Amino acid sequence: MTSSVEAEGAAASLPPVHVIGTGLIGASIGLALTGAGADVTLEDQSETSVALARDLGAGRITGPVEPGIVVVAAPPDVAPRLVLAALERWPEAVVTEVASVKQVILADLVRAGVPLDRYVGSHPMAGRERSGAISARADLFEGRAWVLCPHEGSDPAATRLVTTLAQATGAAVTTLTAADHDAAVAAVSHVPQLAASLVAARLEHLSDQAIGLAGQGVRDVTRIAASDPGLWTQILSGNAGAVADVLRAMSVDLVGVVEALDALAQEAHVADAPGARAVLARRIADGNAGHARIPGKHGAPPAAYAVVRVVVDDRPGELARLLVEIGEEGVNLEELRLDHGLGLPFGLAEVSVLPAAAGPLSEALRARGWQIHS
Amino acid sequence: MTSSVEAEGAAASLPPVHVIGTGLIGASIGLALTGAGADVTLEDQSETSVALARDLGAGRITGPVEPGIVVVAAPPDVAPRLVLAALERWPEAVVTEVASVKQVILADLVRAGVPLDRYVGSHPMAGRERSGAISARADLFEGRAWVLCPHEGSDPAATRLVTTLAQATGAAVTTLTAADHDAAVAAVSHVPQLAASLVAARLEHLSDQAIGLAGQGVRDVTRIAASDPGLWTQILSGNAGAVADVLRAMSVDLVGVVEALDALAQEAHVADAPGARAVLARRIADGNAGHARIPGKHGAPPAAYAVVRVVVDDRPGELARLLVEIGEEGVNLEELRLDHGLGLPFGLAEVSVLPAAAGPLSEALRARGWQIHS
Repeated sequence: MTSSVEAEGAAASLPPVHVIGTGLIGASIGLALTGAGADVTLEDQSETSVALARDLGAGRITGPVEPGIVVVAAPPDVAPRLVLAALERWPEAVVTEVASVKQVILADLVRAGVPLDRYVGSHPMAGRERSGAISARADLFEGRAWVLCPHEGSDPAATRLVTTLAQATGAAVTTLTAADHDAAVAAVSHVPQLAASLVAARLEHLSDQAIGLAGQGVRDVTRIAASDPGLWTQILSGNAGAVADVLRAMSVDLVGVVEALDALAQEAHVADAPGARAVLARRIADGNAGHARIPGKHGAPPAAYAVVRVVVDDRPGELARLLVEIGEEGVNLEELRLDHGLGLPFGLAEVSVLPAAAGPLSEALRARGWQIHS
Repeated sequence: MTSSVEAEGAAASLPPVHVIGTGLIGASIGLALTGAGADVTLEDQSETSVALARDLGAGRITGPVEPGIVVVAAPPDVAPRLVLAALERWPEAVVTEVASVKQVILADLVRAGVPLDRYVGSHPMAGRERSGAISARADLFEGRAWVLCPHEGSDPAATRLVTTLAQATGAAVTTLTAADHDAAVAAVSHVPQLAASLVAARLEHLSDQAIGLAGQGVRDVTRIAASDPGLWTQILSGNAGAVADVLRAMSVDLVGVVEALDALAQEAHVADAPGARAVLARRIADGNAGHARIPGKHGAPPAAYAVVRVVVDDRPGELARLLVEIGEEGVNLEELRLDHGLGLPFGLAEVSVLPAAAGPLSEALRARGWQIHS
């Protein structure tokens, strides 16, 4: 794949890399860089962990005297101390850390009062559902965002070196301030997680019949509510201020909605509820505007695709046959979703394509004997 | 398909059906019942609408003197009056209406003080993104839930007849009280919609770089935030009390989360935040419990599936080739999701299968040359 070639190019220009902390992220960085041709050494407070990472191919244990770049892959409460130690141990090396929050770490480092020109914080936004070196993957960062957070005093050469390292893992680099990073992940990750959990919690005590009315909408909204409480308590605690800010703004909207609904619920009995409907419409319209900001594939907003719904029998090979025939029509799938309802012996395949392709595709599939739905 | 055979069996035992209101839902009911072999007559205050519905095949306009069952397919504010008129016009007919809220309608009818033994409210939970007879589909209800809400005075024979009618459209019938119906759709549909909108609204003013960090989680949570404000204002207004009740409970949780986060944000400066982490963990755990209630395909909870992630090049036919080969391995897909990241020339196909199939499938696909991811 193209990205691997690019990653190898980036890795070829890397100086020796030293990774401190060989959990999921550190060991995966080691695997990705070693695989791309870089020279990687490993270190961890746990002898077992570092030996495991080495055995998996993440790097060597006995390192060079002077690495060119040090990656601290440790939790936010440990990372600042390890960054300071690395800056002192290797006075020429660039140092980055990869914790999921950035402001608290930078604040800790600034408090230490040492020069930070060789430090550049970063955050690879990669999977976390399992932990430890044993779960490490060379392709963990491939196609994922890796956020760089240079601070005011960061040396541009240091920022360039961390950029090269991130690219060598196959990641796509983007640059934000620490505050902007924390606010961004609060809005695009931490608050959606909490919202999914709060909505899902309201389902717990429904009757079997009531929960049986659940459709694709609530399934999508609550999919990430299956996440691990321990992990998310750590994540939310580390970004508490930024998450609270977003939730407070959301809470103001929510209170307004409840007031409008209360007025409408009373309307039949007492009087008109002036403005209540406008409040509801405004909140939904604001959601439209925010939703439209989310980039789709090829940079187009999701609304730019047209959906063709096809009835697919529930047996092996039927969906494949559909997609083969879509391919034969020369149409490229943008998104695909398979929606099964109520245990029936068929499902609906929702095929998203560029709008211009939807009409011809529907006709072509109908001509091939498929049942096209709505 | 099996369901069509069943639908035809149900339709064969139906007396003449009269549909009042030939918008999307009424015309689709006419199309479905006519297609299954029932005798359907149509009525609408708009001559154009009823003629269009007839021309599309939804039924005849000149009806029998005495229909056996009348379907009122009109908005909640009009439905009660039309139900009362139908009960009076046809003193032997069963009457149902299909509005999306049930308590306000029943309350209106009870206030009229007439016998309601021949009335059974219902709600087919089918698509609404377009309106009017022109958007009607014979398969609109196929595989969807159709909720029946018999009241205390409903004649069991009337309930059986409405059940037969719903089944004749291909829908799956479930029975709830009007209050339980309204509370259920508040929790599984109306509140998730509002939550998606409120989360999406927080994305509107993010920078391009910040919104660029959006991953699959926030995409799922906010997918339905693209919904129509006018339509949702109507829906939420009609179920204002039940929606407000669920939102109030959610709001209590939200306030607790914000307080916990505020305590944690202050922690570094002032003191420990006793209990704050427990509050966050509890809210996420409650979400786990609620999420686990959502029935998956075959009645199994979503967590019961294992996910195999496969790298798929972004060109026509590649995903089809993958699914053909999965079919050749004799493995049945439970769910499929295609995840594209950051405009790269490949995507990740998330293939959900029964857990026992995941290991062998991963091995088989690897042996066929596919790259399996995490």
